This record gives sequence, C-alpha cells and structure tokens, in this order.
Amino acid sequence: MKKTVAVVGLGLIGGSLAAALRGFEHCEVVGVARRQETVEYALSHQICDRATTDAATALAEADVTVLCTDPSIVIRYLKDYRDVFKAGSLVTDVCGIKTAIMEAAKVLPDTVDFIGCHPMAGTEFSGIEHSFPELFQRCHLILTPSADSTQEHVDWMHRMADHIGAADVVTTTPEQHDAMIAYTSQLMHIVALSVCDDAELFRCKGFEGGSFRDCTRVAALDVPLWRELLTLNSAALTKVIERLEENLHSYRVALEHRDLERITAKLEYSSNRKRRMNLPGPGQISVDWLNEK
Amino acid sequence: MKKTVAVVGLGLIGGSLAAALRGFEHCEVVGVARRQETVEYALSHQICDRATTDAATALAEADVTVLCTDPSIVIRYLKDYRDVFKAGSLVTDVCGIKTAIMEAAKVLPDTVDFIGCHPMAGTEFSGIEHSFPELFQRCHLILTPSADSTQEHVDWMHRMADHIGAADVVTTTPEQHDAMIAYTSQLMHIVALSVCDDAELFRCKGFEGGSFRDCTRVAALDVPLWRELLTLNSAALTKVIERLEENLHSYRVALEHRDLERITAKLEYSSNRKRRMNLPGPGQISVDWLNEK
Repeated sequence: MKKTVAVVGLGLIGGSLAAALRGFEHCEVVGVARRQETVEYALSHQICDRATTDAATALAEADVTVLCTDPSIVIRYLKDYRDVFKAGSLVTDVCGIKTAIMEAAKVLPDTVDFIGCHPMAGTEFSGIEHSFPELFQRCHLILTPSADSTQEHVDWMHRMADHIGAADVVTTTPEQHDAMIAYTSQLMHIVALSVCDDAELFRCKGFEGGSFRDCTRVAALDVPLWRELLTLNSAALTKVIERLEENLHSYRVALEHRDLERITAKLEYSSNRKRRMNLPGPGQISVDWLNEK
Repeated sequence: MKKTVAVVGLGLIGGSLAAALRGFEHCEVVGVARRQETVEYALSHQICDRATTDAATALAEADVTVLCTDPSIVIRYLKDYRDVFKAGSLVTDVCGIKTAIMEAAKVLPDTVDFIGCHPMAGTEFSGIEHSFPELFQRCHLILTPSADSTQEHVDWMHRMADHIGAADVVTTTPEQHDAMIAYTSQLMHIVALSVCDDAELFRCKGFEGGSFRDCTRVAALDVPLWRELLTLNSAALTKVIERLEENLHSYRVALEHRDLERITAKLEYSSNRKRRMNLPGPGQISVDWLNEK
C-alpha cells in the first residue's frame, strides 16, 4: 500500500531525506516547514511531492512521520501532536541523541509506534539550500526501537535505510547510542572547536593541509542544535573529553622528555589501532568541492 | 634548456612528484631508489623517464635534485653527496620540518643552491604503490630559500609548483614554518593518534560518521617518518598540544557545570572563528574511495 510520509523540518537533514525518499515504494513525501519560503523552495527544487506549513493536517494523514528538527522541537512535537498522529502510524526522528528522545516518546498513545533513528550523516552546513539526496550514501543508520515497535515498522525502516543508501543499520539501546556518539561524533566536534580556539588560527593560513581541513571541518556548526546535543549528553561527553586530555598529555610528556623509545612505542601502538579499525575512505565529500573539480 | 631532475626516494611523495613533474618544461625526470624493485615499479608505471639505484651518478648530472626521503636521510644525503651535486645546480626537498633541514644544508658548497620545500600534501598511506600525480592538486607549497638562493632557482620552484597543481606558494623562514606546522599538521596527527588511543575505539564500529573518519584518518601514519618529524619539532609541538589540552578542558568545565550560557557563548565563538577561516572543502580525497564510486 502506498504510504504518505511526512518529513517535518526541511533543513539539511530533512531536505536531504525528503529528496532521498522520493521514489521509495511509491510513497508520497509531504514536507512540513515553518516558513512558506521553505515550502516554496522545497517544491521548486522537487525535494518533496507536496509541502505545507500546516503540520497538524500533514501529521493526521501520515502513515510515517519523520521528525527532522532540533531535539527540543522533536520533544515538543511529540507532546503537542500526541493526539494528532494517525492511529497505527510510525513516528521516527533523526536526532543525534536518543535517550532524551525515547523518554519523550513515551507521551505517545499506544496506537502510535515510535522508532528512534539517527542516520550518521551530515555536513558542516545547514538549511534546505545545502541539502542533497546523496547525503546518506554509505552512512550508518542507527535505530532504537521502542519495546513494542512492530516488526512491520522495523522492516520499513530497514528498507528505507537501504533506499537512501545507508551502508548498514545498527540497532541498539538509547543509552548505548548516546555513550558511543559522545565519542565518535560529539568529541570530534569539541576537538574541531577547540583546535579553532588556538591563538594561531588566523596566522596559519597558507600552512594548512588535508589533516587540518579534515579535523576542523565540523567546527562551523549550527549552534542552537549542537548546544542541545552536547548538553543533553554532557555526562558521557565530559568523560570522553577527559580521556582525550589524558591521551594528549601522555604524548606531550613523551615529546617533552624527547623519549625516543617511548615516542616510537606510542606511535606504533596508536597507528596500529587505527589500522585495525580499517574505516573506509573519507566520511563526507563536499559536493561543492567535487563539482568544482 | 632542458633540465635533468633527480627525484631521490620514490615513496608516496617522491613517486607522486616524479609523476607530476613529467612534461614540465620538457625536463627529464630521473628517479633514484634504494631497491631495484622500486626502480622497476617506477619504470613500468611511467612514474619517471629513467630510474636507477645509483644515486651518485644521478646526482652528478642533475640540474635539480629533489630529496624525497625521511628527514634523517635528507640530512645524510646532503652530507654524503656534498661534493657530488653538480656545480650550479639546485637542491631541494619535501620535508615537513625545515629548521633542521636548512641547518644541514649549510654543509653544501657555495656552488650548490639549496631551497627548502614542503608541499602540504599527503595521504595516510606510504610507498610508491600509493603514489599518484594528482597528490599536489590544490596544496600549499611552502618554500624556505637560502640567503643566497638565486632568483632563477626560486622562479623554477614557482613554475614547478604551478605545474604540479599547487594552490599557491608561500615563502617563509624555517622557524616560522616549523611553528606553523606544529599546529596545522603535527597537532592534527597527535589528535588523531590520541583519539585512537581511547578504550572505546573498537566498540564504536557502526557508530562512526564523517567527522570521526576525517579526524582519525591520518593516525595510520608512517612511524619512522613521524617519529623524526615530531621529535625534530618537539619544542613547538608540545606548546600547541598544551594549548589544545587547555581549550578542551575549558569546554569540559562548561559542560560539567551544564552552564548553558557559557556553552552557547563558546560555541558561537569557536564556530565563528572556523567560518572566518573559510577553508576550501576537504583536504584529501582518497583516490580509492573515488574510484569505488
């Protein structure tokens, strides 16, 4: 049966997801935005089949609702529209934290199934004008189903992940998700920001190579969004920041002592760990950059 | 006049440079490698016009010699071949540190011109089998000429940089180079290594996104080379590691206190600095990754 999928919030992720979803099992993609301007942009760029600023009407008829907003707004939507979501429908999201979201989803009636979702994709840009349907190519897509999520809905999420190009689907608990993401994503953002805080930043132009551009790329972040993500996960995040401080300190001490044996041993240890991780190529290719080539 | 250019050391950088140089002002590119196997690989892959394991003969006839080896071997070459380099010739290198190299180059006779060079390009791989002529596309190429370097040789370096695709040529002092590189390159490697030292590394598979892959990419480094680069610049490097520890700590404290106002102010500050830097796209595209697409 042809499903109606409401994508709420047409920013970088929502816009990209709406566009990526088009053609998936003949579903009809309805974009929901706060501003009429965004609705018109979405329609004129074929990002969705229909678009509206009327959330209530869109949610009432949606078989699947994907909330693609900042966490606080997802939480508010769940509360404000709890009695609007269609009975038997699936509600999901794309937030980078899951414990707070799954907690908030408990407000939903039993007739509405909530499956937490986090596609590990993004760029340092935000807004619908930066969205592109290939954003999810090769990303991990993480699911945190509710205790009573139906197999039919879980299966739909898997097929959707496959359609948008995700490398795989990882199913886990909200707590495990947040602990892992503190390390793999939030810490990378704190590192990028902290590197940019260095007094030498603007003097180093002309001296930066690939490693600098790669490491600092995500520092140009969306402040309201990241303020929420970081504070909602601060307990796990502060622990991994502290561990990184310790690991940096250990390298610093070895270098201060010019302890060649220790430096060599440390370099062997860390670089072998990296090789064992064996991650595929670069994470995010800037489409602008590729188009320029 | 057609020049003979000897490229000494056919690894990732030397192999890529030799290949990138082909066709530049009709020069003849002569590769010099320690192992016959590398010579044969270079010839069968059209990486240079000629290739040999006989360094002395190659250097004696070269109008330009580019030393593409680890710093300690560059230093040894300068000393061992000081009387072999052709009178009137230009000798240059590609090392990621410059003070120690420029100091070592003082051993050369007045008839040989040394210009320090550091193309800010590389990948996490090493060896001629990973070399590719596009490696230098859009890189910064840094020059540290000697006090008595000739304009003719400086001009040659500029034209060569242009031919291999460098974005620009930055001329500076060895001391300034090493201070900047401690921050833009060496610190990025220490960060990547330290992130990989985290106990969660192997448990996080399936939870990593672009920022994690980008930040940790360079951790899979060439240990003998980086041991040299890091220890030869340890004074500058330990200072920037300490500054990063402090900046990370400052974020950690704000998060521990859940100080929303402070967190917001810090995020605004750091992300605005990043935006002001306005660096172009990702630094290094893995060729394998692109080919897979």
